[in-house]
Amino acid sequence: MSSCIVPVSSDSHFSIHNLPYGIFRPSASSAPRAGVAIGDFVLDLSVIAAAGLFNGPFFSSPSCFSESTLNSFMGMGRPIWKEARSTIQNLLSGENPSLKDNADLRKQALIPMSEVKMELPASIGDYTDFFCSEHHTKNCSKIFRGEYALPPNWLHLPVAYHGRASSVVVSGTGIRRPMGQSFPPTSDGKTPPYFGPSRRLDYELEMAFFVGPGIELGERITIDNAIDHIFGLVLMNDWSARDIQFWESQPLGPFLGKNFGTSISPWILTLEALEPFKCEAPNQEPPCLPYLTETSRFTYDIPLEVAIRPAGEEKQSVVCRTNFKYLYWTIAQQLTHHTVNGCNVRTGDLLASGTISGPDKESWACLLEQTSNAQHDIVLEHGGIRKYLEDGDDVIFSGCCKGDGYCVGFGTCSGTVLPAS
Amino acid sequence: MSSCIVPVSSDSHFSIHNLPYGIFRPSASSAPRAGVAIGDFVLDLSVIAAAGLFNGPFFSSPSCFSESTLNSFMGMGRPIWKEARSTIQNLLSGENPSLKDNADLRKQALIPMSEVKMELPASIGDYTDFFCSEHHTKNCSKIFRGEYALPPNWLHLPVAYHGRASSVVVSGTGIRRPMGQSFPPTSDGKTPPYFGPSRRLDYELEMAFFVGPGIELGERITIDNAIDHIFGLVLMNDWSARDIQFWESQPLGPFLGKNFGTSISPWILTLEALEPFKCEAPNQEPPCLPYLTETSRFTYDIPLEVAIRPAGEEKQSVVCRTNFKYLYWTIAQQLTHHTVNGCNVRTGDLLASGTISGPDKESWACLLEQTSNAQHDIVLEHGGIRKYLEDGDDVIFSGCCKGDGYCVGFGTCSGTVLPAS
Ligand SMILES: [Ca+2]
Ligand SMILES: [Ca+2]
Ligand SMILES: [Mg+2]
Ligand SMILES: [Mg+2]
Ligand code: NI
Repeated sequence: MSSCIVPVSSDSHFSIHNLPYGIFRPSASSAPRAGVAIGDFVLDLSVIAAAGLFNGPFFSSPSCFSESTLNSFMGMGRPIWKEARSTIQNLLSGENPSLKDNADLRKQALIPMSEVKMELPASIGDYTDFFCSEHHTKNCSKIFRGEYALPPNWLHLPVAYHGRASSVVVSGTGIRRPMGQSFPPTSDGKTPPYFGPSRRLDYELEMAFFVGPGIELGERITIDNAIDHIFGLVLMNDWSARDIQFWESQPLGPFLGKNFGTSISPWILTLEALEPFKCEAPNQEPPCLPYLTETSRFTYDIPLEVAIRPAGEEKQSVVCRTNFKYLYWTIAQQLTHHTVNGCNVRTGDLLASGTISGPDKESWACLLEQTSNAQHDIVLEHGGIRKYLEDGDDVIFSGCCKGDGYCVGFGTCSGTVLPAS
Repeated sequence: MSSCIVPVSSDSHFSIHNLPYGIFRPSASSAPRAGVAIGDFVLDLSVIAAAGLFNGPFFSSPSCFSESTLNSFMGMGRPIWKEARSTIQNLLSGENPSLKDNADLRKQALIPMSEVKMELPASIGDYTDFFCSEHHTKNCSKIFRGEYALPPNWLHLPVAYHGRASSVVVSGTGIRRPMGQSFPPTSDGKTPPYFGPSRRLDYELEMAFFVGPGIELGERITIDNAIDHIFGLVLMNDWSARDIQFWESQPLGPFLGKNFGTSISPWILTLEALEPFKCEAPNQEPPCLPYLTETSRFTYDIPLEVAIRPAGEEKQSVVCRTNFKYLYWTIAQQLTHHTVNGCNVRTGDLLASGTISGPDKESWACLLEQTSNAQHDIVLEHGGIRKYLEDGDDVIFSGCCKGDGYCVGFGTCSGTVLPAS
């Protein structure tokens, strides 16, 4: 099935095979509602619902698409997600002619993407950040502790920490350079810390998933059920102020060095859309404990890129090419581990992968790694050098799976660095 | 003013000087609403509001007390909080006779505390845990790193990490012993980790405050304004599984060792109620950076206790006596630091102090410290010894400020350890 009632170029991220969900406003003054990206358009699902076109056995006349977050829909579970996807795909392919043959409805339901304003797709109760890339972990260890090695726990469990839910923002939101305390890196240990704008502002290329149906406190999600609790994936930039982070992190981990802003892409790709891009996950040696052992272990082949566009520069310079498949711990393992102690999760919770670095330098997914914490420069293809980010830099993540003649992509997750104030 | 239309014994935590806010159900089947504790009664504020008795210049006929959380009221700010307090105090003293002289209204509005069911008082967007006790920090450092010392950053900033909001529960909720990975403490470093119920389940005696009016991302709260953003305080038990925590925490901090449950007391004491118990906070040397320097530095003198009541035992054994005033960093400094980087905070966010240990062993506020991580026993006054908590143990925190002939107390924050499942 490749035909679509909307023109979709073969390199569009939003083919009829994709159909990612988001929350948008048709114009700045209109109310937020749910939509699906298709080519250069957004399909307004509240209009499709009002037209009575969701009328299947599980999912009929839903009100959830008129809400300002996707949480209700995300909580309904896979049978409903599949039925909704199938309905939307049939409408957009023309197999069901109800949209194709109704010019008024098409006009009302299909809005040029250039006109809409995207919003955060969900109300996020809790946000957790994992640390699932072996290469990122070893590179960080080398930079901070002089040893290219994994911590003793790392091969046994997906290390994670809690992040700040309040400061997760949608792609396109400007990120203000944070003020904070830092410690002079050349210090003798007696010099006091200084206060001011971060001098080591960084990005971290990550992906994150949204929890679908949650569980109650005291329950746990088993490894073979984990996928049923996962709604879909987004790109994520875990902006990091390395100078603030280093000074504050002992002994309890990152705090103000991270919580000034975390950007996510507006479109959530479902696991159904990613199904054709399933691939083997890295072999785990030593084998993990039984509660983390997957009957069917897989991940997704998602090529990812980071580009920087300095202020006043028209062209983006790609500075990183990596892939989601490099991660050692899968999304099923992350969610299973998170709940093994009885920790409850709620619909809309966001679980991020950690920085997705691969084996070669081009794939190292933050400036900390690429410049060895400002010991080297990187040279931008279209002008400029960087140790860390400068004010005005636009940082653009993208991710796109290539099918046979079509794409299933995430669009972009971007943010411009605003000067400290 | 000590007279009250309800009998209040001189050792009741809930004198007319206190008037803490909570969310309760008059019976298990009725809807949650806001109340104030007075003696052995709860004053139903939704009834008082419906009777038209909130009719001041700032706060008139409010609907917020019929809601299932205090968030709306907490977001309104100090002028309204003060007016509401004054209205309630005048009604309960009889100075305003509208409640005193109306038997029907009294019957409807005053419910025996023994009949009500308390709920979580707020919807908590984000929960942060600080590490503000010098003695706790040094004791932990001694146990883990063999050195009775503070980390280099500790005297310069209030160290903190993000906790899990979803698993904050109200006092009285049973706490299930978590399952998880741990590392044999006697290991040679090659033995693999094991999986099972935590063998080192602990409490941490803390206090926490709720944010009143929040701020937007990119703004900050200055040190002299911080108190205006603080609604009030509760007792908190940051339940901790030390074996899970130790194995997982490097390098990003605590995660599953903490997020299986965090208990708070149901009644929120306002800063107005605590005003008579203001005292000097510890002198800070070296002086902190200007953004953390208080024009008027103070804390509160709040005596605190921990008791354990083993299953089947009638009597509680007090195992810790400490005081909120020992904390090195004040609540104003905590909130100011949290937002100095532009991190937004929302009404209902919970910021906890960290374990409140004092100088002497009796004041060490977790078993980790009291038993040096299971190297010693503690002997319970009413039977039993403990290295860590056992199934069935009821852990009861209390805190009470003694005025002249009256108390301003928090009641208790308790939880019973349920066996792993
Ligand atoms: Ca990260
Ligand atoms: Ca704690
Ligand atoms: Mg972040
Ligand atoms: Mg806890
Ligand atoms: Ni096709």
